[in-house]
Amino acid sequence: MNAEFVNPFLSSFINVLQTMAMLEIKPGRPSLKKDAIARGDVSGLIGMAGPTLAGSFSISFDEELALNVFEMMVGERVESIGDDITDMVGEITNMVAGGAKRQLGEKGYEFNMATPIVVTGPGHTITHQVDGSKVLMPFQSEKGNAYIEICFND
Amino acid sequence: MNAEFVNPFLSSFINVLQTMAMLEIKPGRPSLKKDAIARGDVSGLIGMAGPTLAGSFSISFDEELALNVFEMMVGERVESIGDDITDMVGEITNMVAGGAKRQLGEKGYEFNMATPIVVTGPGHTITHQVDGSKVLMPFQSEKGNAYIEICFND
Repeated sequence: MNAEFVNPFLSSFINVLQTMAMLEIKPGRPSLKKDAIARGDVSGLIGMAGPTLAGSFSISFDEELALNVFEMMVGERVESIGDDITDMVGEITNMVAGGAKRQLGEKGYEFNMATPIVVTGPGHTITHQVDGSKVLMPFQSEKGNAYIEICFND
Repeated sequence: MNAEFVNPFLSSFINVLQTMAMLEIKPGRPSLKKDAIARGDVSGLIGMAGPTLAGSFSISFDEELALNVFEMMVGERVESIGDDITDMVGEITNMVAGGAKRQLGEKGYEFNMATPIVVTGPGHTITHQVDGSKVLMPFQSEKGNAYIEICFND
């Protein structure tokens, strides 16, 4: 999997948080290792499937970041991860994948998006099961941290 | 969402466990409630996407069932959820969705499958984010319990 596939997801995530929450989040050092695992307290996942292309995408937020982004987007503070937060994480995941899909479509990579799934549970781990390569990208901000993971069966 | 959509996933799950692990698992009472939540210790998730159809599917195993199915399939006992178990859960999820896809394709419902994702973490919860309906189906066996959740944006 080359950067052409990965960059649209990263730029879309940065863009969505900037637009929706006025939050600047910075990508860290990507990992391609098979045994790298994304950990988070709340994660949004979305599948992508086309006639020849299949993959999956996830964003894992730590609780701190999820609660802060909600406050910045909605103007209200919630104290723990509940329906408000899972809805928001599902929506952000959908927006990020939709933005990447548009950019990849322009380059001739066509796929449809599944509906998002949100997982909660302190310190859960996510493993994308794919024969192709996986990219795990940590993100840091003043308001908390996130991981993005992108996989395609290339 | 009607039974025509749901039944292929249920029968495929029963069939896969019977074939792969010689385990009989029994469906319980389905729930259509919006606030019903699947809880498990290890879950396999897979997205489904077609030109007009999008959805998601998950199987959540309690730890007991996951470890027992592994032992029945492989003939070796592992004592906790690790790579062996996540690989198996991803594979079972893929097989169940593949079986359902075949049955639904024969009825004219066409979609492609994304690659599976496996989530681990004690008692994590799964929320499918979809405007359409969701079906949550508990399963029980002598070797442990599981939940299946199926959603389509119908």
